[in-house]
Amino acid sequence: MTLLTKNLKLLFITAIVLVAFGFQAQASEKNDYQGPAPKYIFYFIGDGMGLSQANATEAYLGAIAKSNGIQKLEFSKFPNTGFYTTYATNRFITGSAAAGTALSTGHKTSINTIGMDASKQIAYKNIAEMAKDKGYKVGIVSSVSIDHATPATFYAHEPSRNQYYKISLDLSKSGFNYFAGGGFKHPEGDGKIDDNNTMANFGMGDATQIKKKQTNSMDIAISKGYRIVNSLKGFHALKKGDDKIIASAPHLAGGKALPYAIDQDSLTDISLGDFTQKGIELLDNPNGFFMMVEGGKIDWACHANDAATVVKEVLQFDKAVSKAIAFYNQHPNETLILVAGDHETGGMALGFSGTHYDSEFALLQYQNISYEDFTKIMNTYRIDKRGHYNFEDALALAKKYFGLGDASKGLELSKFDLQQMKDAFNQSMKKKQNKKNKDQYYLLYGSYDPFTTTLCHLLSQKAGIGWTSFSHTATPIPVRAMGVGANLYTGFFDNTDIPKKLMKLIENK
Amino acid sequence: MTLLTKNLKLLFITAIVLVAFGFQAQASEKNDYQGPAPKYIFYFIGDGMGLSQANATEAYLGAIAKSNGIQKLEFSKFPNTGFYTTYATNRFITGSAAAGTALSTGHKTSINTIGMDASKQIAYKNIAEMAKDKGYKVGIVSSVSIDHATPATFYAHEPSRNQYYKISLDLSKSGFNYFAGGGFKHPEGDGKIDDNNTMANFGMGDATQIKKKQTNSMDIAISKGYRIVNSLKGFHALKKGDDKIIASAPHLAGGKALPYAIDQDSLTDISLGDFTQKGIELLDNPNGFFMMVEGGKIDWACHANDAATVVKEVLQFDKAVSKAIAFYNQHPNETLILVAGDHETGGMALGFSGTHYDSEFALLQYQNISYEDFTKIMNTYRIDKRGHYNFEDALALAKKYFGLGDASKGLELSKFDLQQMKDAFNQSMKKKQNKKNKDQYYLLYGSYDPFTTTLCHLLSQKAGIGWTSFSHTATPIPVRAMGVGANLYTGFFDNTDIPKKLMKLIENK
Repeated sequence: MTLLTKNLKLLFITAIVLVAFGFQAQASEKNDYQGPAPKYIFYFIGDGMGLSQANATEAYLGAIAKSNGIQKLEFSKFPNTGFYTTYATNRFITGSAAAGTALSTGHKTSINTIGMDASKQIAYKNIAEMAKDKGYKVGIVSSVSIDHATPATFYAHEPSRNQYYKISLDLSKSGFNYFAGGGFKHPEGDGKIDDNNTMANFGMGDATQIKKKQTNSMDIAISKGYRIVNSLKGFHALKKGDDKIIASAPHLAGGKALPYAIDQDSLTDISLGDFTQKGIELLDNPNGFFMMVEGGKIDWACHANDAATVVKEVLQFDKAVSKAIAFYNQHPNETLILVAGDHETGGMALGFSGTHYDSEFALLQYQNISYEDFTKIMNTYRIDKRGHYNFEDALALAKKYFGLGDASKGLELSKFDLQQMKDAFNQSMKKKQNKKNKDQYYLLYGSYDPFTTTLCHLLSQKAGIGWTSFSHTATPIPVRAMGVGANLYTGFFDNTDIPKKLMKLIENK
Repeated sequence: MTLLTKNLKLLFITAIVLVAFGFQAQASEKNDYQGPAPKYIFYFIGDGMGLSQANATEAYLGAIAKSNGIQKLEFSKFPNTGFYTTYATNRFITGSAAAGTALSTGHKTSINTIGMDASKQIAYKNIAEMAKDKGYKVGIVSSVSIDHATPATFYAHEPSRNQYYKISLDLSKSGFNYFAGGGFKHPEGDGKIDDNNTMANFGMGDATQIKKKQTNSMDIAISKGYRIVNSLKGFHALKKGDDKIIASAPHLAGGKALPYAIDQDSLTDISLGDFTQKGIELLDNPNGFFMMVEGGKIDWACHANDAATVVKEVLQFDKAVSKAIAFYNQHPNETLILVAGDHETGGMALGFSGTHYDSEFALLQYQNISYEDFTKIMNTYRIDKRGHYNFEDALALAKKYFGLGDASKGLELSKFDLQQMKDAFNQSMKKKQNKKNKDQYYLLYGSYDPFTTTLCHLLSQKAGIGWTSFSHTATPIPVRAMGVGANLYTGFFDNTDIPKKLMKLIENK
C-alpha cells in the first residue's frame, strides 16, 4: 500500500466518522438521544399542576420580594420544556387514575382505572416495574395517601382507584424498595367502596370477597418483608442500606395525607422534601434508582380554589425537586429529572375580571391556614353555637385567618364583598344546602363549606387570581426536563409519550 | 517526515475535528445553534393566544370529527416548544404594546409604549429593522389595523400606542416591502387621542402638533414610494416583483380590522392566510425575507369571552401558518418558523364548574356570528323598538345565532339560564347601566352588551369552557418553533428572549 492510499484510507475513515457525528449533531437537534441510559431517574408529578399553578407561585415569590417580575422555581430553570394533552379514553377532562396510568404505562385508559386497559381486563406494565427489572432500585413518594390514584398507577393494577385495600396489597407485592409520604387509606379492608361503578365492573367474585373480614394490609406488607415507619424518630433513624421501607408522616391530615404545607409544623412534621431526600439516601446504589415523587395536594387545594394553599404546596413540591437537583449536581452525566403534572385543576388564571389588569399576588401571604383546617373551625363554630350564629364572629375569623377586612394589609372589604360573605355565612350555618337554586349554589361554593370557599375566592380575586371550576380542566400540561435524555422532552405531545420516551431511554440499560 | 508521524498527524487532526463535532452534538443538546442564519424567517404572533386558545380549537376540531381526543393544529406539530413570561416594566399583566415591544426589540417596556424604553425616551431597534439591515426583505401582516400595537412594534417608535397617526408615519419611513391586513386607524390625523396618558407624556410639542390639520398618512406613504391596494381585484393582481405595497382588506370591520373569520365571506373577503401567501410571493428573493404575521383578533374575541369566535380566529391563524409550512417544505434547510403569542386574554380554561368534568366542545359550531355583529343586531333592535321590547324576540335571536334554546342541538335552557338571559336582556335595553351594583355588573358583562355577553358565556359554559376575565392574564405563553435554529426555543424564558435568540441567529448573515 502506498503512502497515498494509506492516507486516503485514513481520510476516508475520518470522513465516515465525521458524517456519523454530523448525523448525531443533526439528530440531537431533532430531539433524539442515542447515549447511555440515565442511571438515576427522578419523575416528579404535580397533581393538578398546570402552567398557572407554577407561575402563580413564581408571581407570588416575585411580589413578596418586591421584584418587578417573577422569581423562578427551581424546576422552572430546567433547560427543556414540552407540553402534552391529558384526555382519557372516555372523557376529555381526565382524572388522576387515567392520567396516572398514562404517565406510568404509556397507555390511555378510562376514568378511575389504575394501570389497566379501558375495559379493565389487561394489566399494563409501568415504567417503575420496568426500571425494577433493569436493576434500578425503586421509590414511590407522595404527599397524599400512598395508595392514592397517582402513586398507585406506579405499582398497582386495579379496575378502580377506590379499591384502596386491593391497591395496598399490590403495593406489598411490588417488591419496590421505598414507599413514603401519606398512609394507607383502608388498611383494614374496603368495607365500603365509595365508587360510582357497579360492583360488576370490578371482576368476578370481588363483591363477595371484599365484604369478608380482611387481614390488615400493613400486616401483609410486613409479612412480605416491609418495615413500617410512622414516627419522626423512626424516620430520622432510617439510613443507607435500609430496604423495603414504608414510611409515612407522623401526623396525617384528611385522606391519610400529609398536612398541607401551610398547616405543617416544621418541628414535628416531615415534608415532601424530607421524604425525597431520605429516598435518595436509601435508594442510591451502583445499579441506579428510579424515584417517583408526587405533589398530590396541589390538586386538592385547587379543587377548593384555595390559592394561598396552592402556592405553599407548589413551594414544598419545588423544595422536593431541589433535593433531586442537588443530587444531579453530583451526578450530572448520569441523572435525569422530569417534572410533570397529571392535569390542571380549577381553571386557575393569573387575571380576574374584577381586578381588570391589576394583580397583587403578595396578598396571599396573609392567609395562614388551609381551607381544610378553616372548614374545621367553621364546623366547630356551627356545632358549638347551636343556632346562635353571629356574622361578626365570622368577620373576625376572616380577618384572623385570611387578613380579609384588614385595611392595613390592603384587604378592605367592599359592600359587594360583605354581601357575598354574609350570603355564604348564612348558607354555611344551614344544615342543608339551598336546593331551590342548586345550579347557582354550586357555581358559588361547589361541594365545599360556603363561607370557607367565599373567603378563598375573595382573597384569590383581590390577588388577581380567577378560577373557572371546582374540578379538573383539559388544558395541556408542561413537562420540564434536565439531564440525560432531557432533550427528548420538547414539542407538543401526549401524556402517554412521557413514559414512552423514558422506556426508550432505559431500554438498553 | 516519516509515514508514522504523517499518519499520527492525520489522526491528531481527526481527533481534533471529532472532538469539535462532539462538542457540537453536545452543544445542540444544550439548545445551542452554530450553523448559518435562516434565510427565510416567519414570526407568527397570536394576540391573546395562550395554551388554552390553541387547545380549545384543537378540542373543538376533535369533537367535530367525533374523535376521542384533539385534532392538532398545524403549528402544534412543530418539534420545539418553550414558554415565557410576559410582564411589563410597570404592570405584571402586560398589554399588547409592551408585549409587542418585548417580542420585537428584546427589551421590556411600560404599558402602551411602542418600541421605546419605559420612560419613552430611547427608541429600541427591532428585529425587523435589523433584518432589513442584513438585506432581508420585510413584511408585516396583521388581521387588525396595520398601525395597531403589535404590528406597530415592528416598525414604529412612539410613546403611546394610541398615536395611530404618528405610527402610520413611522410605517412610511420604515422602507419595509410589504404591509398587509387591516387599514390605517386615523390616516387623517389623531384629532382625538384616546389615551389615558396625559399629553405631557408624549414628548415636547406633540399636543400642539397633532391638533394641526394633517396630511393624510396614506398620501405620505404614496409620496414615500408605497402603493396602496385595497380592492379584491388589486390584491389578486399583485405579483412577484411588486414592492413597497400596503394592502388592506376590501371590507374592514370595527377598528379597521379584517372581519372576524366567523363573519367573513370567502368570496369577497381576503383572509389572513391570503395575505400571508401573497407576502411569500412578493418577498421571496435571493437575500431572503422576514415576515411577521399577527392573528390580532384572537385577543379581541377573548376580551368579549366569545369562545366560538376565538376558535374560528385561531383556525384562520393556523391556516396562515400552513402557508409558511408549505414554503418551509420547499426550503427546509433555510427556513425558520416561530409561532408565539403576546399574552393570554380572558383566563380561558377548558373546564367550567357548572359542567364539572364534562365538556361538549362541538356545541360551539352552532354559533354563526361574532359577538361584534350580534351586538349590532341588539343595538338596532333597541333603537327600532324604542321601548317596546319583547324577551321572546331576544330568545328567537339567541336560538338563531347561538343555537341556545334549541333542544335538537343539545342546547336546552335551564330555569337559571333563562333568568340570566332575562336579567341581561333588561340591562341591554336600558340606555344606561345599573350603577347601583357596578362591581357585580362588571363581573357579569364587562363593558360589553349584557345580552350578547350572556349568550357568549352560556354557550362557552355549555361547551365546558370557563373565563376568569375580560382583560389579559399573566399566564406564560408557549412558543412553537420549526426549522433553522428552532432548537433554541425550548425551556422557560422571558418574552424578550424570543427576539434575542432571533437576533443571535441572524447576527452572522
